[in-house]
Amino acid sequence: MEYLWATYRLRVSEKEAKQRARTLALEQTVELPDPLVQDPFVRGHIMGHVEALEPDPEGGVRARIRYAASAIAANPAQLLNVLFGNSSLQPDVELWDVELSESVRGLFPGPQHGIAGLRALLQVWDRPLTCTALKPMGLGPEAIAELCRLFAEAGIDLIKDDHGLADHPFCPFAERVRRCQEAVEEAARRTGRRSQYAPNLIGRPEELEAQLGLARSLGVQVVLIAPMLVGLPVFESLVRRFPDMVFLAHPALGGAARIAPEALLGRLFRLLGADAVIFPHAGGRFAYDEATCTRIAERLRGPWPPLRPAFPVPAGGLHWERLEAALRFYGRHAILLMGSALYEAGPRIRERSRAFVENVQRLTIRSMRDDPTF
Amino acid sequence: MEYLWATYRLRVSEKEAKQRARTLALEQTVELPDPLVQDPFVRGHIMGHVEALEPDPEGGVRARIRYAASAIAANPAQLLNVLFGNSSLQPDVELWDVELSESVRGLFPGPQHGIAGLRALLQVWDRPLTCTALKPMGLGPEAIAELCRLFAEAGIDLIKDDHGLADHPFCPFAERVRRCQEAVEEAARRTGRRSQYAPNLIGRPEELEAQLGLARSLGVQVVLIAPMLVGLPVFESLVRRFPDMVFLAHPALGGAARIAPEALLGRLFRLLGADAVIFPHAGGRFAYDEATCTRIAERLRGPWPPLRPAFPVPAGGLHWERLEAALRFYGRHAILLMGSALYEAGPRIRERSRAFVENVQRLTIRSMRDDPTF
Repeated sequence: MEYLWATYRLRVSEKEAKQRARTLALEQTVELPDPLVQDPFVRGHIMGHVEALEPDPEGGVRARIRYAASAIAANPAQLLNVLFGNSSLQPDVELWDVELSESVRGLFPGPQHGIAGLRALLQVWDRPLTCTALKPMGLGPEAIAELCRLFAEAGIDLIKDDHGLADHPFCPFAERVRRCQEAVEEAARRTGRRSQYAPNLIGRPEELEAQLGLARSLGVQVVLIAPMLVGLPVFESLVRRFPDMVFLAHPALGGAARIAPEALLGRLFRLLGADAVIFPHAGGRFAYDEATCTRIAERLRGPWPPLRPAFPVPAGGLHWERLEAALRFYGRHAILLMGSALYEAGPRIRERSRAFVENVQRLTIRSMRDDPTF
Repeated sequence: MEYLWATYRLRVSEKEAKQRARTLALEQTVELPDPLVQDPFVRGHIMGHVEALEPDPEGGVRARIRYAASAIAANPAQLLNVLFGNSSLQPDVELWDVELSESVRGLFPGPQHGIAGLRALLQVWDRPLTCTALKPMGLGPEAIAELCRLFAEAGIDLIKDDHGLADHPFCPFAERVRRCQEAVEEAARRTGRRSQYAPNLIGRPEELEAQLGLARSLGVQVVLIAPMLVGLPVFESLVRRFPDMVFLAHPALGGAARIAPEALLGRLFRLLGADAVIFPHAGGRFAYDEATCTRIAERLRGPWPPLRPAFPVPAGGLHWERLEAALRFYGRHAILLMGSALYEAGPRIRERSRAFVENVQRLTIRSMRDDPTF
């Protein structure tokens, strides 16, 4: 039999832990008290099984529960359901970690390009990638495309829409994507270096599909999507059906899920197909600490066969002064996303963008001199 | 101009509140510091605006922020994004309430049948509806259909799949739905009363659509779906495209969202099209208190033109002994969902199910005698 495991943090005393964990294992599978489950197949192949209980260093208890792979029906929505469907409604539970046996991981697409694929697309092998965002929401397609052109001319590798750019009447998706794609192509003809523009897909499934189809027809190869906004199963389905596209995943709506960011962004986003995952770097506008960021990065990049490694994309207030520290923190296999820190240069945004690109190159060389394994 | 409003609970001191609320309003719209937003259209039509700050009775501050309707692009994914996309990543913020002007509400489908439509379908006007669940996950289609037959013969109005029943190899969706639908139809021929079987839709968008199409072709008129598992925009899209179906919404994965249940289940689920919304009744296996349950019910049933009222469906450990209290608590316009309390009768599940139906009738008459407005 094949299995998956979820580790939950339970805010209960050690005395209550055993009973609480058992109730949780039932809630997530049979939704009946134990004595009412008589069927031997259900008991042996469906019911969750408490495998380990240990004190949580931060208080309460960590409970590791084993589920049979058969329960998840090879389906991303049912995977979420078994991991955290009803228990999400119980405030004493947090989903802390997720593990799947190799063949269970193989039921899901994982990154179709991952670190190596995105490096090959950009032809950048020796340094962290650079990334910025087109904003604010409210600008028209011409103004957005002008910013895109500027960033491309400055040599930034990935230029993504802000995740707030939808298909607005004042900035229609089709026109924005056409103009931005033209901008990166024109810049490439002038500079000889090709940036990738990543438009934001947002909406109902049929709209996402139309947006993706249109973007692809215009030559776009990388897209931005917020899996929690559109639905994780929708995201997975797009990855499966458009395997030639690179998916950059945005964490919007993902922090509120009482699922540890390591599990949601590090494990589930990778499992379901993100080639690169944006998350808030420690010390910015958001509250993740360095240990969390390290774990997210490890889970995205570490060996997890048969799934490819994905890029961590630290963001969320990466200040100009913190660039070197962030670069050293994540090492070479990261995408450094700098948004406001470029915009705050005002009329000198072009110079600041060039300096961003040059600094990443220079700091990489310096870091490699200090640490050849960087 | 048209607007929507979000009220957030901020865990900050009153002194910090003004600045924190402003930062939040920017984060959810322009994602830039205020001085960097120069464009007059963006300032006037996109940027969030802090309208009110007041102490939260439970500590911290409540901040009411106004957003321009233009920001949400008439799209459910972008609605979520503007309400709580990035802020979900900031642990000091909870989305507490959502209000939309009438014309903004009209951008979304709301319940297509609602209370009156579901009553008309079942031809029950004078009492709360009864509901139960087919479980546990792991049973085959024959065993599930036998339970369905039994509940239908007992006269239960709505018989839904447990939300853990997916398209499993051991219980394929197509066979389960065919057998269960036959069971309710045969029971109707024998008893003269037609129960409705509601299969659980779960999966990727294309699977949901196939499941819905198949169920409809077999005569199914009511379906169960967990909008947070499949994605809220996917749910809304199904409601729009299958307006003849009644959608019963399940809260799985919805409790973890650090969005108040009143806002998520009471407002957003109704806005996006739920005809009936399941939620944990106070005192059961979950942690909602009575005040929360009252607010959820009010928001589902209260006037919110142009959207129809939706049924509250209290569940989650509705014990046998608590039936009368729950019935009096919610009044006539509710669906009382009793799962485990029927199964725990073991071999007497048939008698218990009949007693459930009879008690709801009897207790309704008694309640109406005590309170003619019941």
